[in-house]
Amino acid sequence: MNTTSFLGDMLQAITDRGRRLLSLNVPVDGSNPVDRMEALCEALLSGRGEASGMALANDILTAWRGLDPEGQLDFMQRLLLNFGPRTKELERAIDTYRNDPTPVALLVLHEAAEPRRQELIRRFNLAPNGIESLVRMREALLRMKKDRPDLEAVDSDFAHLFSSWFNRGFLMLKPISWSTPADILERIIRYEAVHQIGSWEELRLRLAPKDRRCFAFFHPQLADDPLIFVEVALTREIPNNIADLLREDRVPIGDAEATTAVFYSISNCQDGLRGISFGNFLIKQVVEDLKRDLPRLDRFVTLSPVPGFANWLADERRRETSEALNQADKTRLEALDESGWADDAELRAQVQPVLTGAAAWYFLKARNARGRVIDPVARFHLGNGARLERINILADRSPRAMRQSHGLMVNYLYNFDDIEKNHEAFAARSEVVAAAPVRKLVPADRGTRSLITGAGSGSTGVQNEKGSKEFSA
Amino acid sequence: MNTTSFLGDMLQAITDRGRRLLSLNVPVDGSNPVDRMEALCEALLSGRGEASGMALANDILTAWRGLDPEGQLDFMQRLLLNFGPRTKELERAIDTYRNDPTPVALLVLHEAAEPRRQELIRRFNLAPNGIESLVRMREALLRMKKDRPDLEAVDSDFAHLFSSWFNRGFLMLKPISWSTPADILERIIRYEAVHQIGSWEELRLRLAPKDRRCFAFFHPQLADDPLIFVEVALTREIPNNIADLLREDRVPIGDAEATTAVFYSISNCQDGLRGISFGNFLIKQVVEDLKRDLPRLDRFVTLSPVPGFANWLADERRRETSEALNQADKTRLEALDESGWADDAELRAQVQPVLTGAAAWYFLKARNARGRVIDPVARFHLGNGARLERINILADRSPRAMRQSHGLMVNYLYNFDDIEKNHEAFAARSEVVAAAPVRKLVPADRGTRSLITGAGSGSTGVQNEKGSKEFSA
Amino acid sequence: MNTTSFLGDMLQAITDRGRRLLSLNVPVDGSNPVDRMEALCEALLSGRGEASGMALANDILTAWRGLDPEGQLDFMQRLLLNFGPRTKELERAIDTYRNDPTPVALLVLHEAAEPRRQELIRRFNLAPNGIESLVRMREALLRMKKDRPDLEAVDSDFAHLFSSWFNRGFLMLKPISWSTPADILERIIRYEAVHQIGSWEELRLRLAPKDRRCFAFFHPQLADDPLIFVEVALTREIPNNIADLLREDRVPIGDAEATTAVFYSISNCQDGLRGISFGNFLIKQVVEDLKRDLPRLDRFVTLSPVPGFANWLADERRRETSEALNQADKTRLEALDESGWADDAELRAQVQPVLTGAAAWYFLKARNARGRVIDPVARFHLGNGARLERINILADRSPRAMRQSHGLMVNYLYNFDDIEKNHEAFAARSEVVAAAPVRKLVPADRGTRSLITGAGSGSTGVQNEKGSKEFSA
Amino acid sequence: MNTTSFLGDMLQAITDRGRRLLSLNVPVDGSNPVDRMEALCEALLSGRGEASGMALANDILTAWRGLDPEGQLDFMQRLLLNFGPRTKELERAIDTYRNDPTPVALLVLHEAAEPRRQELIRRFNLAPNGIESLVRMREALLRMKKDRPDLEAVDSDFAHLFSSWFNRGFLMLKPISWSTPADILERIIRYEAVHQIGSWEELRLRLAPKDRRCFAFFHPQLADDPLIFVEVALTREIPNNIADLLREDRVPIGDAEATTAVFYSISNCQDGLRGISFGNFLIKQVVEDLKRDLPRLDRFVTLSPVPGFANWLADERRRETSEALNQADKTRLEALDESGWADDAELRAQVQPVLTGAAAWYFLKARNARGRVIDPVARFHLGNGARLERINILADRSPRAMRQSHGLMVNYLYNFDDIEKNHEAFAARSEVVAAAPVRKLVPADRGTRSLITGAGSGSTGVQNEKGSKEFSA
Repeated sequence: MNTTSFLGDMLQAITDRGRRLLSLNVPVDGSNPVDRMEALCEALLSGRGEASGMALANDILTAWRGLDPEGQLDFMQRLLLNFGPRTKELERAIDTYRNDPTPVALLVLHEAAEPRRQELIRRFNLAPNGIESLVRMREALLRMKKDRPDLEAVDSDFAHLFSSWFNRGFLMLKPISWSTPADILERIIRYEAVHQIGSWEELRLRLAPKDRRCFAFFHPQLADDPLIFVEVALTREIPNNIADLLREDRVPIGDAEATTAVFYSISNCQDGLRGISFGNFLIKQVVEDLKRDLPRLDRFVTLSPVPGFANWLADERRRETSEALNQADKTRLEALDESGWADDAELRAQVQPVLTGAAAWYFLKARNARGRVIDPVARFHLGNGARLERINILADRSPRAMRQSHGLMVNYLYNFDDIEKNHEAFAARSEVVAAAPVRKLVPADRGTRSLITGAGSGSTGVQNEKGSKEFSA
Repeated sequence: MNTTSFLGDMLQAITDRGRRLLSLNVPVDGSNPVDRMEALCEALLSGRGEASGMALANDILTAWRGLDPEGQLDFMQRLLLNFGPRTKELERAIDTYRNDPTPVALLVLHEAAEPRRQELIRRFNLAPNGIESLVRMREALLRMKKDRPDLEAVDSDFAHLFSSWFNRGFLMLKPISWSTPADILERIIRYEAVHQIGSWEELRLRLAPKDRRCFAFFHPQLADDPLIFVEVALTREIPNNIADLLREDRVPIGDAEATTAVFYSISNCQDGLRGISFGNFLIKQVVEDLKRDLPRLDRFVTLSPVPGFANWLADERRRETSEALNQADKTRLEALDESGWADDAELRAQVQPVLTGAAAWYFLKARNARGRVIDPVARFHLGNGARLERINILADRSPRAMRQSHGLMVNYLYNFDDIEKNHEAFAARSEVVAAAPVRKLVPADRGTRSLITGAGSGSTGVQNEKGSKEFSA
Repeated sequence: MNTTSFLGDMLQAITDRGRRLLSLNVPVDGSNPVDRMEALCEALLSGRGEASGMALANDILTAWRGLDPEGQLDFMQRLLLNFGPRTKELERAIDTYRNDPTPVALLVLHEAAEPRRQELIRRFNLAPNGIESLVRMREALLRMKKDRPDLEAVDSDFAHLFSSWFNRGFLMLKPISWSTPADILERIIRYEAVHQIGSWEELRLRLAPKDRRCFAFFHPQLADDPLIFVEVALTREIPNNIADLLREDRVPIGDAEATTAVFYSISNCQDGLRGISFGNFLIKQVVEDLKRDLPRLDRFVTLSPVPGFANWLADERRRETSEALNQADKTRLEALDESGWADDAELRAQVQPVLTGAAAWYFLKARNARGRVIDPVARFHLGNGARLERINILADRSPRAMRQSHGLMVNYLYNFDDIEKNHEAFAARSEVVAAAPVRKLVPADRGTRSLITGAGSGSTGVQNEKGSKEFSA
Repeated sequence: MNTTSFLGDMLQAITDRGRRLLSLNVPVDGSNPVDRMEALCEALLSGRGEASGMALANDILTAWRGLDPEGQLDFMQRLLLNFGPRTKELERAIDTYRNDPTPVALLVLHEAAEPRRQELIRRFNLAPNGIESLVRMREALLRMKKDRPDLEAVDSDFAHLFSSWFNRGFLMLKPISWSTPADILERIIRYEAVHQIGSWEELRLRLAPKDRRCFAFFHPQLADDPLIFVEVALTREIPNNIADLLREDRVPIGDAEATTAVFYSISNCQDGLRGISFGNFLIKQVVEDLKRDLPRLDRFVTLSPVPGFANWLADERRRETSEALNQADKTRLEALDESGWADDAELRAQVQPVLTGAAAWYFLKARNARGRVIDPVARFHLGNGARLERINILADRSPRAMRQSHGLMVNYLYNFDDIEKNHEAFAARSEVVAAAPVRKLVPADRGTRSLITGAGSGSTGVQNEKGSKEFSA
């Protein structure tokens, strides 16, 4: 706090000097702050940037925060149009390269093709808290991009630099616990994206009991602001619903009883870092950390939402001829349109076999227009090399989950002897590795040609039997 | 230590799995380890890199450390030749861009021109201690480059990524003191490049007294290994020689007496980061830190070597017609060739006026083939916006200093109201800002046309008088 | 957390061994756990204590926690009766001393008079978390003492050791802020004794705004558990009520505007440390810390409750002849018996002048049976050398404050040039130093003979005028 | 550093105020500083001490440091004579107690018998760095005590308070390594009492290799100054000499090979804490720490000097009739008087059997006037419950060791299943537990009546065989 305020004072002083100087030297029409910012950007890229880069960068980022949305869009457009590559040099570099494609000519070409924006953004980072400002700037940019797809070129420069700066090598895994500073915990409450945390008391229930863990990645320059975090429950069995897992009155289990680590919530925290992927590394490192602390753990599994299922199912139900659903299925699924179906044993019995079959189809057979698995959460875990382990009916009765997936949740299993093989099957051939009981759920007459046998499925046989019985009930 | 060893174990396990897998899948001729490394690099860039990047990167970097110099050169050549841009895509991107130079076409072109090496190096950084390994790798690369200038293209990719990763925004300034861990201090002893530290007792004399300070920049991923450090003495006056400053039996002065901070040694620590500049930021931030702690300080000055002077002077003496030296000067300078001149009052008296005049010329008038100031240390400080404040005769009698500069040292003064102006004069117009007494030392008949009046020179008048008298003695 | 659990394991092992041994060697009637504990205490004081003190102490403290209240009382009685001084040696030491009162004879006498309990308690402290267990043990002891005043001798030994162990020299002052670990903040919520903190959001309002501070003393062995804390508001004026100070919608003021630090809540956290005084040191060190950080602060003042006022006033009203109240006063004060008086302008007007006069009398003239100032909060601050600065009517309308003091609060002013003088006046002569306007409030005809002129009262004159007007309104 | 200097400033201010006040109020004859100090001590014990205790304490301790030895002795005598118990109150308390020896009467008696010094020393501790000053003060006191045994009563009060303040519960065990701050390492070099550390390079050899460890106890108020430390070597075997253990060119062994932890040097650091015992706790906690980190370790042993052996042996040789040595032994031992005996194979062969027999007698049979084992190091380890494991001839050839013990060193073995039993045998019955081979070394005809069988000796049989052969060689 003091450090910051000291730095602030110091920068104020430097900035004042800088501003004085600039007001003498930079011809700026004072009426439009974006004109002035553009002039400062040019100064920052020039030799002056070397002497006073910190102050100039700070000045620009401060001005940015003061702009209204229109001004911010204006600034982004200038980055797009006025801070691209030096085209003359680029033309020359292309010619040289075409004449004689040496490594050096390539190097010159690559440098000439680099937009001046990249160096500009690099120098913005000289400002105190520069990286935070830049993450916020990209947040705004991503919002603009919806209406202005041409800003893609600017966003690409941000993304390029962020993927260097937020390289896995720089991230620090830290446990989040009930003795973590309150300002960080406050952010955990705010950022939780899967199962909302309603109060500090609820947060305490997720952090303080001895069978709960939480881990986050931090970046050295964003020290109090997590990038991504995962909440973990230690259990005896693979859980089949979220309510029991989070029940307030449950009795925590001891370390000696815990055999299973359940990743039941993974939340990305920074919109401005969209597309910079951390989750894969997070899960793997957390698994290693947990193994070290609790050598008895031998199963690492998620309890995950299925956000795309209800939409897909609605489409299939509307379809004249659906590969996934026959007419009888459609009729039985009409129960889903009754508001209270989940609490009515009869309706539930009518719906469940169809729902589980459809879910198995959704994961194993259905593909989107680009030939990919439809569910984004499935793509994440399967892409990491996990296996689809079990489908759980009515596992989350929150309104959102009922809306998104008719209450369905699934478990993905991380078996570290198989993840590379699984990943490769998925990445190279879009094959979904699933446990045998899940594969059996795919409606039989509609073909199971290309289903993959889950590696090492033997060890979870009992669980699967139980799962399988449950699903066919 | 434990963490590292734990990580090591974990990686060993992953790597073993990875190796097993690779031995199945990657057709590698076992006889040449660089073949295997190249295959691993391809795997790291492929989808497999996403699942097992950490292990693959670790494997490659470990293999690299095991190579002999020939093998390392072989590996670098493969990076040069086999991991450049994808040329087909590049050709296509050039065509598209020339047809219609939209921002998106530019973006595609820039990406296509990026050597695959860059992503490869980024992924190397996934390995534990990746950044340290990469810095060491570039050390080796810089050594190779002397004989193999074509490796410039590879080096350029390292330099590009390092300048992102070692961006000022990520560096941490930390004080180095007598309560700094011994393993870091051991490195300070080893890295000191200006005035050698002969023993722990000598180190103690530079760190422990209350009128001494030391500061270093660290990077979060190189936590115990400084990037650059500066040693500071707090004094009452601008010092005119190094021996008095470091005298063992001197009495430290109290904070209340200190008016002047003397930067008497600045050492870059990492050969592998050559060309990534930190010194400028270091000095400025140290100045701010010192000001905060010791508000009475009002003068920030260096005591700097002049490494290029003796060579330049020898050239001038050899020259038929020198602008800097007339025949009388040359005759008097012959005393320099006597080994004991510095201890002989008569010879010293004969030499000194010529030497100071020549030194003034060296800084203010002499330029190298590219029109730049000759002395590298001068270029650094003048480029930072400092002013050449004083020339000190026989200020360092160590053999190296006698050889490099006939014992000459100079003071550069950092006045923060002037540094931007000074920097600009120097950067834009190669003008050297010097204090009036220094300018007067330039041999009068040889012209002083374009000399610059030092900004704010008034405040140092008394010092300069003293300096000037001393020089004319 | 891990450390603790590790230590726990280790101790379990040692304790198991110890228990085995003891079961062989110590003849214990298993039916009464207190018998066994007493035997363990004897073992702990014997030579065995040296080899296995940690395990024995841990065993005893664990057993203590398992006792019911009756068992705990039994144990304390044994400490009283069976672990007093060695009476034979004491008799001998008295005889020797009376024969020849040398320093050595005195020393022997002192040692002989020391109850064995003291060494026993010292050795209890060998157990992990020993100090925490001992603080909890004394909590229980203080509860017992109400009915069993003879336990005073045991309590006195605890108090004696605690005053050594919690010596000011061992306490650490730490700021409490919104980035303090949540488990510590949770305790702050629980321990707050003056103005209840209802939720984490309320806590945030007391910690996060830039014009709020909080500080606590910690002991190295009770690292996460504060001993005492003070909440501070930075203001422009001396506040005259608590509601405005804590108002949720107020706008925080900047450092530059703050002239006054208000200590508005001081809470002791550990019942088991009753009688071990920290508050005095806390206030003084916080003042120094605040001065250093915010040199513009020049007034340090409390906003304090008056917990003994309503009881005293009720007594005076019941008294046939009261020095403090005449008959007219009593009549006017009858309004206090109406529940809504504070919201009724007429009743308020009727009551206020009498209430302020009575309050002034309460502080300045009234004394308890032992001749001391009645109000415990007043005794604390006046004993620290503060001055009674202002009396604030209806300054706290919480039910508790209305009940304890008819809503009255006061400000005590800490002026560090006067505190020693003030303290001495109070400690040596029971003189209450008060600002002139407060002294004037004492009902005139009842004598103001011995009132003390507040040192340095000049500087607060304006404030006092305002205060005085307010009171007479 | 800053904190300290800030505190210094603050105290200066308070002290100045205090001094002003005192100069008004305390009639002090300025000519003798000890008079003034005594007056300040009285003030510190009075009510004023409560208001300004920190400043008064600081003033007294500062004055103490300025006294010459004579002045310091004068001050200690005043503590002895003028700050004993209040004798009148003590007489009254004795009378009351003798009339009716209730617990309360005992309590009053104990308090009355407490010298006022104790409270005074407690209040000295209020000064910043009070505890350090008090430790230094007792250092001086212990020096004085040699000539002035009557100061024992004063020393006893210091010792009493120190044993509370340095209670095991407050000590922190910290590893000392090559990344420990240099100022702490510098103290390790200085404090090393057993095997001198000649340079930083030697220190590095004891800390940096992977098979070396060092641990120290610290007190929270003496944060940079260790109280005691132990140096540990990890080995495959029980070492039989110090030179091999410290050899510069040895190859460190890996964690997997280490079975044995050797405590080869234990040094107390603070003379002022003489008699406050930490070593026992240190060894036990280090063993637990090592076991946790290196579960393969299963043997914990010392390599210890035998400082009292040569003196005892000289006495026995001089004795007309020695139980330990017969005439033939004495004759053979004459070789010890030849300076080069250790390097002469013949003389060594002549001496060794007698020397080992005498050493066994020295440990197992010889006792001092108070019936105790003679060797202080033996008393320490045997008192901790260790077993005498092996006697090593010519194990330390340093001049000091040759002089003190003719080069003899021994191993004590800590077996945690036996230490309590061993301790009790030693403490209660002065029985020395030794391994069988050591017991066999006691010259047979001179009786082996009361020798104790080492508990659990079976497991070390092989070692002992080897040991025994070696000794009889």
